[in-house]
Amino acid sequence: MRTALCDTLGIEHPIVGFTPSEHVAAAISRAGGLGVLGCVRFNDAAELDRVLDWMDTHTDGRPYGVDVVMPAKVPTEVAGMDPDSLIPAGHREFVDRTLTRLGVPPLPEDEAARAGVLGWLHSVARSHVEVALNHPVKLIANALGSPPVDVIEQAHQYGLLVAALAGKAEHARRHVHNGVDIVVAQGYEAGGHTGEIASMVLVPEIVDAVGDRAPVLAAGGIGTGRQVAAALALGAVGAWTGSIWLTTSEYELTASDTAVQQALLGASSSDTVRSRIYTGKPARLLKTKWTDAWAEPDAPEPLPMPLQNLLVSEAHQRMMRAGDPEVVSMPVGQIVGRMNEVRPVAEVMATLLRETEETFARLDKLR
Amino acid sequence: MRTALCDTLGIEHPIVGFTPSEHVAAAISRAGGLGVLGCVRFNDAAELDRVLDWMDTHTDGRPYGVDVVMPAKVPTEVAGMDPDSLIPAGHREFVDRTLTRLGVPPLPEDEAARAGVLGWLHSVARSHVEVALNHPVKLIANALGSPPVDVIEQAHQYGLLVAALAGKAEHARRHVHNGVDIVVAQGYEAGGHTGEIASMVLVPEIVDAVGDRAPVLAAGGIGTGRQVAAALALGAVGAWTGSIWLTTSEYELTASDTAVQQALLGASSSDTVRSRIYTGKPARLLKTKWTDAWAEPDAPEPLPMPLQNLLVSEAHQRMMRAGDPEVVSMPVGQIVGRMNEVRPVAEVMATLLRETEETFARLDKLR
Repeated sequence: MRTALCDTLGIEHPIVGFTPSEHVAAAISRAGGLGVLGCVRFNDAAELDRVLDWMDTHTDGRPYGVDVVMPAKVPTEVAGMDPDSLIPAGHREFVDRTLTRLGVPPLPEDEAARAGVLGWLHSVARSHVEVALNHPVKLIANALGSPPVDVIEQAHQYGLLVAALAGKAEHARRHVHNGVDIVVAQGYEAGGHTGEIASMVLVPEIVDAVGDRAPVLAAGGIGTGRQVAAALALGAVGAWTGSIWLTTSEYELTASDTAVQQALLGASSSDTVRSRIYTGKPARLLKTKWTDAWAEPDAPEPLPMPLQNLLVSEAHQRMMRAGDPEVVSMPVGQIVGRMNEVRPVAEVMATLLRETEETFARLDKLR
Repeated sequence: MRTALCDTLGIEHPIVGFTPSEHVAAAISRAGGLGVLGCVRFNDAAELDRVLDWMDTHTDGRPYGVDVVMPAKVPTEVAGMDPDSLIPAGHREFVDRTLTRLGVPPLPEDEAARAGVLGWLHSVARSHVEVALNHPVKLIANALGSPPVDVIEQAHQYGLLVAALAGKAEHARRHVHNGVDIVVAQGYEAGGHTGEIASMVLVPEIVDAVGDRAPVLAAGGIGTGRQVAAALALGAVGAWTGSIWLTTSEYELTASDTAVQQALLGASSSDTVRSRIYTGKPARLLKTKWTDAWAEPDAPEPLPMPLQNLLVSEAHQRMMRAGDPEVVSMPVGQIVGRMNEVRPVAEVMATLLRETEETFARLDKLR
């Protein structure tokens, strides 16, 4: 199966795969899709630079992309002000109380709490872009919509394409107006930051709004070839996938990642929740005792971005360390119900492609 | 386009159209789909009988269906107890206060408040089934899942097929186990009673769970041929549609219906909300000042079915009478964003079919 996206990105199959793991991202690119590395975990731009060096030598010359988290409007980052001072004591108390109740031990004394995931900060996301421009990156995607216009222009000067996620047609129109090259229509069922409109309705709406000016990818709920074919039927020129790569065997597993993978493998499509507790903006997460706690009547309202992630960042570190599959914090889409075994990236890709072809053949018989 | 559903139901196109209007239902059947008449509004079984007589003479011998609202478990219907006595005074006060604030006048003195929509009561839904059995009805669908097993058996004795809506794979398995013939996989984006899982994920999940034993229809978000094609790509043998028929020209418009239709024509896909305020179970409604009021901090929790509908029933009557498009109570799916003009049923059907064919042709070129 080939679409216009294959030529635009120089790839074999119109499947883009987002992942926080460079091992998985490189494997997706080697399998003929476009691996897109999530950058939000890199507090240190030099570390991202080293990882992209690794990508450059492990993608067999195939294209790859990076994903940053950059709001178009600069959020609460008061110059010279410690963002920590903006977090109410009651919120901190709730987090501590909840972790104690869920049996999550504090960090060992010799392990300092990390500074939090600063990738949500505008300045850090900009440093990610700076690093990416000095690598043979094909695509910069922004999980929070249009990047600032100067970032788009800079990317274009370096020959990079810019993609932006959209949860509404009006967002897609704004992206294209700002110079974004590829729009990702991300439906309600998707993992991570999502809107309210489901893919079935959203994808054709965004295709009709901007499809004549920019290729539209469908994101949300895609994990089988039937879903890839449905995305193409809806008018998308390709699929943006994320969740399904979380249970691939290339994912390097620390002891704590194992707990997350175990939780994902056991979850059904009903086991996710859309909540503001991860970053301050609505994001779909695996439903666990941690998300349940935030849904109880005594839980505080989540803080705005970027404060909420600073608030829960040490909690995430503690939960990861504790390694209890029932108490993890993990973005994932409703497709998690279909993620029931660990498989190599190449096998996941081959299955997707085979089933897409089978679906086309089945539809052809209905004509 | 023909699928197995066409033979099962004796129809030309695998498009089922649910509607509360007999005029629209008959037109859908005449156009080659299966018109399904919603029965919940008939408090009086004799009135339903008369309307089905009308259907029998206006469907040109084509098959049609009926839709009842019958929980498998009998809800709070305390024998000999006035259900009204179970409604807390605070809830009634909230409703009155809200209507006053929104400028909805009381009913005129010469117009008694109707008894409420009793179709939500188990006994009334059973009377609907009894009536339907004495007409050449092809299909009885239940909006709330499996009907009681004795109802299924009775329908089968009369040669009728039974369909049931499912929002989870486990519901679909239970339906088929109980003897249901056709499963409607109803996604999050659908109007009326819905679950949390979006069509993109739900449809293949239900097809994999029961598709070898029962035909699966996709419901939720379907209003264009691209969406029909996507539903078929996902493994459904047809589409269950509802919202899109609300703005057809066959809909007989009273002055108050005009306000509803006006509200629907102006709404975008973001203008719906999933809430328990209509019946006590989660249902997707048009977002209006009425649904906004129930989302405010001072609003009470909706009551369980069937009490909530009894509570708001007079309010619905008052809002309908007032005819303000900003203050209506109307179930509709996210596809409402695409319902922008009033068209005859036959034209809506022809457009759906043409675009489905065009989509198949487009997909065929990608192979």
